[in-house]
Amino acid sequence: MADTPLIALDAMGGDNAPAEIVAGGVRAARELGLRLALVGRPEEVVAELAKHGAKPDTVTVVPASEVIAMDEQPAQAARHKKDSSLVVGMRMVKQGEAGAFVSAGNTGAIMAAAIMYLGRIKGIERPTLAALMPLSGKLTVFLDVGANADCKPNYLLQFGEMASAYMQRVWKVERPKVALLNIGEEEAKGSTLAQESYALLEKSGLNFIGNVEGRDVPTDIADVIVTDGFTGNIVVKTMEGVADFVMNQLRTAIKSRPWYAAAGLALMPAFNQVRKKLDYREYGAGPLLGVNGLVFIGHGRSDARAIFSALRVAREAAQSGMLEALREIAPARTR
Amino acid sequence: MADTPLIALDAMGGDNAPAEIVAGGVRAARELGLRLALVGRPEEVVAELAKHGAKPDTVTVVPASEVIAMDEQPAQAARHKKDSSLVVGMRMVKQGEAGAFVSAGNTGAIMAAAIMYLGRIKGIERPTLAALMPLSGKLTVFLDVGANADCKPNYLLQFGEMASAYMQRVWKVERPKVALLNIGEEEAKGSTLAQESYALLEKSGLNFIGNVEGRDVPTDIADVIVTDGFTGNIVVKTMEGVADFVMNQLRTAIKSRPWYAAAGLALMPAFNQVRKKLDYREYGAGPLLGVNGLVFIGHGRSDARAIFSALRVAREAAQSGMLEALREIAPARTR
Repeated sequence: MADTPLIALDAMGGDNAPAEIVAGGVRAARELGLRLALVGRPEEVVAELAKHGAKPDTVTVVPASEVIAMDEQPAQAARHKKDSSLVVGMRMVKQGEAGAFVSAGNTGAIMAAAIMYLGRIKGIERPTLAALMPLSGKLTVFLDVGANADCKPNYLLQFGEMASAYMQRVWKVERPKVALLNIGEEEAKGSTLAQESYALLEKSGLNFIGNVEGRDVPTDIADVIVTDGFTGNIVVKTMEGVADFVMNQLRTAIKSRPWYAAAGLALMPAFNQVRKKLDYREYGAGPLLGVNGLVFIGHGRSDARAIFSALRVAREAAQSGMLEALREIAPARTR
Repeated sequence: MADTPLIALDAMGGDNAPAEIVAGGVRAARELGLRLALVGRPEEVVAELAKHGAKPDTVTVVPASEVIAMDEQPAQAARHKKDSSLVVGMRMVKQGEAGAFVSAGNTGAIMAAAIMYLGRIKGIERPTLAALMPLSGKLTVFLDVGANADCKPNYLLQFGEMASAYMQRVWKVERPKVALLNIGEEEAKGSTLAQESYALLEKSGLNFIGNVEGRDVPTDIADVIVTDGFTGNIVVKTMEGVADFVMNQLRTAIKSRPWYAAAGLALMPAFNQVRKKLDYREYGAGPLLGVNGLVFIGHGRSDARAIFSALRVAREAAQSGMLEALREIAPARTR
């Protein structure tokens, strides 16, 4: 048992907390034998736990009296709410009690708390938030999705190095293909940032495959796609928007004629197959890379299934030596 | 007849040139009474024309012996191929022979030729390429989609002003709602560029509605959405990629079981409805704003329908005083 690391889970974070969070945690404990610390208001967490029958032996409740709301000012909340589930969970990682922390709470507050309590890995200029793209059937990790709105070429290089280490350790991709998101395929294309980042990535030891364009994002062209946090955030949100739009339009079209409805019903399993591919919940949570500890940030809308997936990935990360690999990334200044 | 302006069409530009281009032109001449100059290699253009029966009276052929290929180096091609359809068409606008020029050719070469032969409108810092987003059922003009990879706040302000004038004149939107693409809704969010652009847009005379996020792009939240050419290009290409992905996945899912096929067939009209909404071809071509003449750039994949739509919009622009409205935009330096 001592072999498998304890994972701390923010029971109070996310739109569906605590019910869905606790449900996902219980499932992970039962099905994966995961050692889990549910961090949150004890009475609420215990009440949710009771809904799922006997508490699994591997689940403990760690009390935290405060909650950081989804719309709270991130840095302030992280600084002042020292007994919040989010900060308590982060401190468990800091103190080595937990091998990783998973939260679907206020993204800004999680990032702020991670930097405040865990600190940056030495030599890493900017921690970065990555998203897992499930669309192509094979995973692509896409970053930065919003942690750093203004970037320098060196940040993008380090994003590539960290994501590459993550894909190697956690997803067992031997030599991850790293691409740069740009507005053309040729080397000389794009913004100054993109061109300078290209030059750094090309002479890095990474398996750099060059530029990819927006239309390549939902494909399996690369294992890692690197961009600045402004572009990256807009890309993932645009993808969500377009996918929702198409599915809604289909629903409306099918409802528009009575004789479509039967056909629509017959196709439901096929539609669900497609929905599932578009579904971030299959993959749970994105890693916050570059802080001195393992932190996974789930979508605010995470349900039990997303939390289950996130916990599985978090444990894999904790067992795989991923953090040690990130610590070996050379500091930017030596380049 | 003298009332309706002559529109020059690049018969040799685009993946489907000259067949689809000429077909779209003939249709516009017949159905809209459009006065059209087909610019290109006369023998090829005449051969295509012959496929459509008697040449409409309002169609003339303007000879140009050279063709700029889709993958040619833009600036060089525009400079050296002086008898290309693209450059000849541009000169017709310059000399006042044509009220507008439409091309589905090499985007970079069209932009380079426009700047070279027409020049910038006085006071406009950077010409910009806009895309028409048909998704929400109501048009949104989205820009810059790739003309300017590196932008300054003043450029974004002028993009907003030009697109606003375009929506007013051509699409008769009285007080176009202008939004800034950003990674959060609050004023203080985003990159330095986004924050400084916000400040300029807010104190402009525009109907500025604030920040919108990626997920708002395929909605009717705004009439104009402004961003830099790097982000904008990646957004439109991501949208294309995701829409293609979803439709392909649906097709595959429907084919996966024999009993889905019949239901899929019954739903074809509903699917086609959705496809049509995702289809840039419904709206033809995006305006190149800020050059001293009206230029519309179609998608390389434009077919006859796209060209037809582009010609209709180009004539509307030429008749609406749009260019004059753009010329009234105050130079940036006076702000």
